[in-house]
Amino acid sequence: MKNYKMVLAYDGTRYNGWQKQGNTENTIQEKLERILQEISGAETEVFGSGRTDAGTHATGQVMNFRINWNGTAEQLLDAFNAKLPEDIAAVSIAEMPPRFHSRLSAKAKHYSYSIWIGKHSPVFERKYTFRCTETLDVQAMRQAAAAFIGTHDFKSFCANKRMKKSTVRTIYDIVFEETEDKLTLHFYGNGFLYQMVRILTGTLIEVGEGKKNAGEAERILLAKSREQAGFTAPSRGLFLREVFYEDWKGGSEA
Amino acid sequence: MKNYKMVLAYDGTRYNGWQKQGNTENTIQEKLERILQEISGAETEVFGSGRTDAGTHATGQVMNFRINWNGTAEQLLDAFNAKLPEDIAAVSIAEMPPRFHSRLSAKAKHYSYSIWIGKHSPVFERKYTFRCTETLDVQAMRQAAAAFIGTHDFKSFCANKRMKKSTVRTIYDIVFEETEDKLTLHFYGNGFLYQMVRILTGTLIEVGEGKKNAGEAERILLAKSREQAGFTAPSRGLFLREVFYEDWKGGSEA
Repeated sequence: MKNYKMVLAYDGTRYNGWQKQGNTENTIQEKLERILQEISGAETEVFGSGRTDAGTHATGQVMNFRINWNGTAEQLLDAFNAKLPEDIAAVSIAEMPPRFHSRLSAKAKHYSYSIWIGKHSPVFERKYTFRCTETLDVQAMRQAAAAFIGTHDFKSFCANKRMKKSTVRTIYDIVFEETEDKLTLHFYGNGFLYQMVRILTGTLIEVGEGKKNAGEAERILLAKSREQAGFTAPSRGLFLREVFYEDWKGGSEA
Repeated sequence: MKNYKMVLAYDGTRYNGWQKQGNTENTIQEKLERILQEISGAETEVFGSGRTDAGTHATGQVMNFRINWNGTAEQLLDAFNAKLPEDIAAVSIAEMPPRFHSRLSAKAKHYSYSIWIGKHSPVFERKYTFRCTETLDVQAMRQAAAAFIGTHDFKSFCANKRMKKSTVRTIYDIVFEETEDKLTLHFYGNGFLYQMVRILTGTLIEVGEGKKNAGEAERILLAKSREQAGFTAPSRGLFLREVFYEDWKGGSEA
């Protein structure tokens, strides 16, 4: 049995998220497992580095799986791409040591969230950005974002109300990328709670719109209450960009 | 009556092209005229700078129309954008002299055609590029393209077999833009025949794939026969980028 790590890109628009669960149909995991079974002949589980919600995209999702394979890794990659629908791509592959696990071995992740701030509809990016028609005070958003950087209890930013495990996470950095039409927030952290990036983004948008003050960010963290944070920004603006398997030394896309 | 010029961007994927004709439903022109009637209360024709085929996109289509309007041009633009579906946007507007006509006054146009040459599926650009899985000899394509620049009879590159008017056109330049994953051909000319950009692109792709020699370009032009040219590249890679209303002095996007 070989253990393969595969990097995936997908447009999440028409899927019910990454994870197969109960009678949820049309998940990305399910699609990949079906293809893997066609290729290898054996029923094989794939392990994602984390779930992505329905409608969320990835340019750097990572999964691993164990199969008997006599060809080269490159041949396996090609076999996947030949069978994948055009909204999912297998970007790269590597054979890993037996103990490698895409989720458990992950040290850090990079998510991005794109907010469309252009004057008219994001015609060609309408499925990949959330449109904000109000003018955003980006300086106030940066100030609020600074309060989130570091190790904090992010309970206020977790959509799972019955979360029993620790809600403490470390955000290494939040980088603002601005063009005339688009504001993209890059989140780098050691892990993210359920919908945490979308709730952080929604909160920052409310700060940008003047509905919340930048100074409130710290109070919201300390409140440890989902009700204190902002809205959950829609999934279509969210991308899983990269999963890091080495200790954090500052980020750049692979 | 005021005469307005409006620049439009649209994702042509779900439309039957620009021009309303006979019983063709779901054209972009039809959609715009319906909105204009809602705004102005009067049935009004819009004039496009040219038709775009079903599935072809635009970032700089230009139309004009004459209406009675007491508000500012900016208010008219906003009224359009408030009613447009999210795959069409009104980018800019200007009041023009009475004789301005988007098609008849046009001096030059810029079209682009994007060919996906990346190793895996163009996940996020699959509706905006044509994927080529064979390796392209871009040097040979450049050589063939050079033969098309200038004033020629482009009858071999016209899909309309019953074309009675002149098929002589001038191509000012064909610019190659290359990234790791994408080859975009930019065509600048004083006018283009029906499907001319797509047939030129299909011919250049066949040269790139080695199915035709670069040296054949001139022979194909002189043959004045559609059968001699290459295939018609699919509409989804084609964008109308800009329409110029002044004499050609070398191009850049507005």
